[in-house]
Amino acid sequence: MAELITAVEAADIRFPTSLDLDGSDAMNPEPDYSGTYVTVRTGAGAVGHGLAFTVGRGNEVTVAAVRALAELVTGLPVEEVLADLGAFSRRLTGDSQLRWLGPEKGVIHMAAAAIVNAVWDLYGRREGKPVWRLLAEMEPERLVSLVDFRYLRDALTPGEALEILRRAEPGRAERTERLLAEGFPAYTTTPGWLGYSDEKLVRLAKEAVADGFTLIKLKVGADPEEDVRRLRLAREAVGPDIRIAVDANQAWGVEQAVEWMRRLAPYEPYWIEEPTSPDDILGHAAVREAVAPVKVATGEHIHNQVMFKQFLQAGALDVLQLDASRTAGVTENVAVLLLAAKFGVPVCPHAGGLGLCEMVQHLAMFDYVAVSGSAEGQVVEYIDHLHEHFTDPVRVRGGRYLAPSAPGLSAELRADSAAAHRHPDGAVWRRKDAR
Amino acid sequence: MAELITAVEAADIRFPTSLDLDGSDAMNPEPDYSGTYVTVRTGAGAVGHGLAFTVGRGNEVTVAAVRALAELVTGLPVEEVLADLGAFSRRLTGDSQLRWLGPEKGVIHMAAAAIVNAVWDLYGRREGKPVWRLLAEMEPERLVSLVDFRYLRDALTPGEALEILRRAEPGRAERTERLLAEGFPAYTTTPGWLGYSDEKLVRLAKEAVADGFTLIKLKVGADPEEDVRRLRLAREAVGPDIRIAVDANQAWGVEQAVEWMRRLAPYEPYWIEEPTSPDDILGHAAVREAVAPVKVATGEHIHNQVMFKQFLQAGALDVLQLDASRTAGVTENVAVLLLAAKFGVPVCPHAGGLGLCEMVQHLAMFDYVAVSGSAEGQVVEYIDHLHEHFTDPVRVRGGRYLAPSAPGLSAELRADSAAAHRHPDGAVWRRKDAR
Repeated sequence: MAELITAVEAADIRFPTSLDLDGSDAMNPEPDYSGTYVTVRTGAGAVGHGLAFTVGRGNEVTVAAVRALAELVTGLPVEEVLADLGAFSRRLTGDSQLRWLGPEKGVIHMAAAAIVNAVWDLYGRREGKPVWRLLAEMEPERLVSLVDFRYLRDALTPGEALEILRRAEPGRAERTERLLAEGFPAYTTTPGWLGYSDEKLVRLAKEAVADGFTLIKLKVGADPEEDVRRLRLAREAVGPDIRIAVDANQAWGVEQAVEWMRRLAPYEPYWIEEPTSPDDILGHAAVREAVAPVKVATGEHIHNQVMFKQFLQAGALDVLQLDASRTAGVTENVAVLLLAAKFGVPVCPHAGGLGLCEMVQHLAMFDYVAVSGSAEGQVVEYIDHLHEHFTDPVRVRGGRYLAPSAPGLSAELRADSAAAHRHPDGAVWRRKDAR
Repeated sequence: MAELITAVEAADIRFPTSLDLDGSDAMNPEPDYSGTYVTVRTGAGAVGHGLAFTVGRGNEVTVAAVRALAELVTGLPVEEVLADLGAFSRRLTGDSQLRWLGPEKGVIHMAAAAIVNAVWDLYGRREGKPVWRLLAEMEPERLVSLVDFRYLRDALTPGEALEILRRAEPGRAERTERLLAEGFPAYTTTPGWLGYSDEKLVRLAKEAVADGFTLIKLKVGADPEEDVRRLRLAREAVGPDIRIAVDANQAWGVEQAVEWMRRLAPYEPYWIEEPTSPDDILGHAAVREAVAPVKVATGEHIHNQVMFKQFLQAGALDVLQLDASRTAGVTENVAVLLLAAKFGVPVCPHAGGLGLCEMVQHLAMFDYVAVSGSAEGQVVEYIDHLHEHFTDPVRVRGGRYLAPSAPGLSAELRADSAAAHRHPDGAVWRRKDAR
């Protein structure tokens, strides 16, 4: 008898990070890093874990969305699902009633991401491979079959996607070896949160350079005088050869972004991230034209492949920051990577939060080995908190992510951490409420 | 003591419309028209009703999102809320944790819409005016204060918005009289659902013309041969002088849309609605260029004012179809109407569903009286089902909406209808499950 998917469980996991102002930026002054944590189970006892990242309140809404989608998944034969993961994604995003809630955006799409990621984790475990390697060893034709081309063909055809993948095929083995030996470049946002004191900013910036990072990132956008001062301090701390990116987290309008960046320009920011609304393709294009040679980076809130397509078509970004759970997980991100390769734009995934580093490292490494075939200009965000709660935490050494070797997507929370941080009834939240 | 908002209640209301194939289209083969039905109450016993429309499964997710947002609303002094409804909207869409779930899109934005609409209903009742008149009698400065310009200034400044409203001010009284005397133009989608037989299509098309409609709409996009045949039948039934719009409900890619419309061209469709992904601004612009003089219409899935701004900037639509609850309700729709007026694009609101006709008529009439100042090319969708469940149902006579006179937004469900259709425990759903 066929092995069926018997359960899609969703847990509301939250970390009270707002107490420390870790993660504070212009739009998110007090996030509680959270995850809609999905566990997929089969009748034979196989398991997969995935998550969608949120920042606290409202995580229960994404949990409710996973439960709504779960009805489309339980009872499916697992081998059929794994054999055609493109069809599985279309099943989740194409349900004729549930798609009204997006379509392919916001809560319902993040819920789909959590499920899709859990199924890829299960697939990796089944094959005994980390997901980056599972993907990097797939035949080009199979990878192309993951992509939903319905709305992409005017920018990327199946034939072009296949060509991109075939071009990268001969170098796969060599790049895999290099990746295993050297890891993949990381950058760090650890020094740059808005809530930190000058002293802490300078100290952490210097530590980052000492640790081997060549790019650090500062949050900006709350106050221009402050930003000039903080960027100057950071520049003095790290010297002229270290890249400093700045991140406005959507704080500005188009003209305001241009004006603000003019003031920061003397300190040579490398990129400006999310200068304005993440929906504003034309606005980003205008900002990009005005602030060059400073690069424009965005993506953590770009909600699906149709939006990424247009950002690329419009020349609206220099740096594409895909996210593990804003778009619908690993499967849609294969399409995003192919689009980026088609347009020759480097991919620097968004990470931090909860489990994002763990998940996106797989996508960046797959891209390097089998899609873009290059690490040129590509660098994965790294923030050094909450990793201890995962069973297969990221390892960053000398400013580089070491390739994960454990089977799966590295998104499994330790059972004790998951239990303690379950909202509202886990021990951490019961204690917090009791204060 | 100040009168406080004491409750924001959300009910999951669903109508089993899929049993009759009312509302079937290329992407929504079997919708159950539903609403996340919000009731706002104050300590003094005042009440307002609003809703966000969905198509069945997943309505509970929007309900959960309303409950998450409700915490931001209960306890506020109602006079403060009504005095600055722009700030109230920003409070709902700008919460630093909840906005991660959008931002300003999908489930969380639809939930905000339902609450905002309920508060406008309450406001109208309090002032003893239908909302169209409440808005149409507001001072231009006050209307401008409703708009969140953060991401709009590159297309519309507060000064330009004020100028648009002032230009329309002298004609307000005359247009109000004409509106009260003649109503506002409607068009009907009743004949055109995909699930209907040819005989029913022809009969309903002829009835629509006899009823005074000068524009009818057909669903297309499932099968090209079928569409050619159905459009030919409809054209033969109504003659050359009646406009026939067609609606693909996002079924096509960009090139496919152009090709399909080439086949339908001989039967002179008036507009093609939602030819492709509602996120694809550049795609719509390409389709528009290729299919002219057929117009491109879209908007029911355009998720916020930043997207509308770009559709207008890119010349991606000829007909702007705002929606009562996809964007964040009445308040954000004031911004959308101002954008449309700035770019000189006619507004033809999306309706049908559950309560959409009831709500959008207010927006179209406000626009006519006080924003665009014109009904030229403007027409409100009308579908003749489910109105009997509302306490102040729309009245359409001779192909025109009669101006509502009851105070509020016309979004209140009859208590018996709401009780019977509550999912899953209302009488209608208990009976359905028992079949």
